[in-house]
Amino acid sequence: MTDAPHPFDAGATLEPLAPNVFRGRTIPEWGNMVGPFGGMTTATLLRAVLVHPERQGDPLALTINFVAPIADSEFDVVVRLVRTNRTNQHWTLELQQGAEVKATASVVLSLRRETWSETEASPPSAPAPEELEYADATGLPVWLDNYDQRFVVGRPEQSGEHPSASSTTTVWFRLTPARSIDYAALAASCDVFIPRVFVRLGRMLPAGTISMTTYFHASAEDLADVGADFVLGTARAATFGGGHFDQSAQLWSRGGALLASSHQIVYFKG
Amino acid sequence: MTDAPHPFDAGATLEPLAPNVFRGRTIPEWGNMVGPFGGMTTATLLRAVLVHPERQGDPLALTINFVAPIADSEFDVVVRLVRTNRTNQHWTLELQQGAEVKATASVVLSLRRETWSETEASPPSAPAPEELEYADATGLPVWLDNYDQRFVVGRPEQSGEHPSASSTTTVWFRLTPARSIDYAALAASCDVFIPRVFVRLGRMLPAGTISMTTYFHASAEDLADVGADFVLGTARAATFGGGHFDQSAQLWSRGGALLASSHQIVYFKG
Repeated sequence: MTDAPHPFDAGATLEPLAPNVFRGRTIPEWGNMVGPFGGMTTATLLRAVLVHPERQGDPLALTINFVAPIADSEFDVVVRLVRTNRTNQHWTLELQQGAEVKATASVVLSLRRETWSETEASPPSAPAPEELEYADATGLPVWLDNYDQRFVVGRPEQSGEHPSASSTTTVWFRLTPARSIDYAALAASCDVFIPRVFVRLGRMLPAGTISMTTYFHASAEDLADVGADFVLGTARAATFGGGHFDQSAQLWSRGGALLASSHQIVYFKG
Repeated sequence: MTDAPHPFDAGATLEPLAPNVFRGRTIPEWGNMVGPFGGMTTATLLRAVLVHPERQGDPLALTINFVAPIADSEFDVVVRLVRTNRTNQHWTLELQQGAEVKATASVVLSLRRETWSETEASPPSAPAPEELEYADATGLPVWLDNYDQRFVVGRPEQSGEHPSASSTTTVWFRLTPARSIDYAALAASCDVFIPRVFVRLGRMLPAGTISMTTYFHASAEDLADVGADFVLGTARAATFGGGHFDQSAQLWSRGGALLASSHQIVYFKG
């Protein structure tokens, strides 16, 4: 008898089909408005590199382009090791369903070295997560049930219309049930923020990420220090128009370490 | 008799070799510390998509990964149209020298639509470029001679050691001789900022971009409005350590339009 995997690991499961091909599948627990939660797709692609026998180093940069809607079904992840340098390694990836490419991605791994270090940015001010209310996600896409979210500002509205002059959301969150954070979970975490246009206009409307880039600042030791604790995320947009908006996000540990920064461009209708 | 091309166009010249293969070459005018200025490489890759007969739309997102040093020589750009949707189009690209991949990239084009629009971010405060001193680039990499730069804050030091508590550079700049800005020139412009670690530590040290992502907010009409005028760039880092730092930049028109936002992860020694 074995324990059932954590829902995160169930969602990001990959089965090797060939040296550079892995089979994954969407599961209902990570469903979004259309297809799976993009953060889970991102984590699954990253995992294909992390489990690869030729892997050298830990994630430094990841870009994913959402090319076409992913059907709720099996998919293949095809990885290609482009080059291994002394301190970094470049990969490209594709997510395919049948003959169709649904996502493309690039991943840079790196061997971190001791250098001068300083974090110039500051985390947003926030009370401890224990002092904030658990955000019930009833009526929102089902994947949100996998996160325990405690909003500081910019909570999504679940009914009515509540426009805001600011697109900023700041929120403590962690997987539920509790699970230690690793690079795959960190990659998914960068996409937890609801579309900024929902926050500005105070209502839901059709929107979806087109391209997302994440920079991983945390070392494996930094992630071990976080364990299964809450992380503090903050996200905002700079501009909306022409059918798109941008989003920039930072994820901080409770101890004040900048774990990741992430950027995306999102389409919307309205 | 024909006029010589502008140095920018001379640097980004591509000759079609096959339906999805273009030949380019580095030229000394765009030389950096090692190989060519990364902004010129980025612009050249973007141009391969922009001149492609199957192009649909204008640039929305571009990611380039600098996989290995580009030798001062000819190179081939191999493009692949991954998918054309109703309002966007996905491309992947490679820059090759012989059998070696030197850069990979992805480009998303989009047909912009009328939607709700608002720019939430604000340009940095700055005097008019005409009130600021032209920054002589003597002693700096030769590609900088192609830009007329007027620094507001965070000017690179050319001698001595002048650490700063802030990594921010804000600078007005334009190509010299004057040339109207287009998407290729805008893509290059996002990489004009010297490495943020030079600004913080107040001295030059080995550093190079590993991966850069740019989001194009300007429509073609917005760029026509800018013409050959100065643009206001501002760039800063959030964190330094482990051999890397990040950079986030925004480019603004004199009229207050956010033309592009751009992010990169950079390696450094020291």
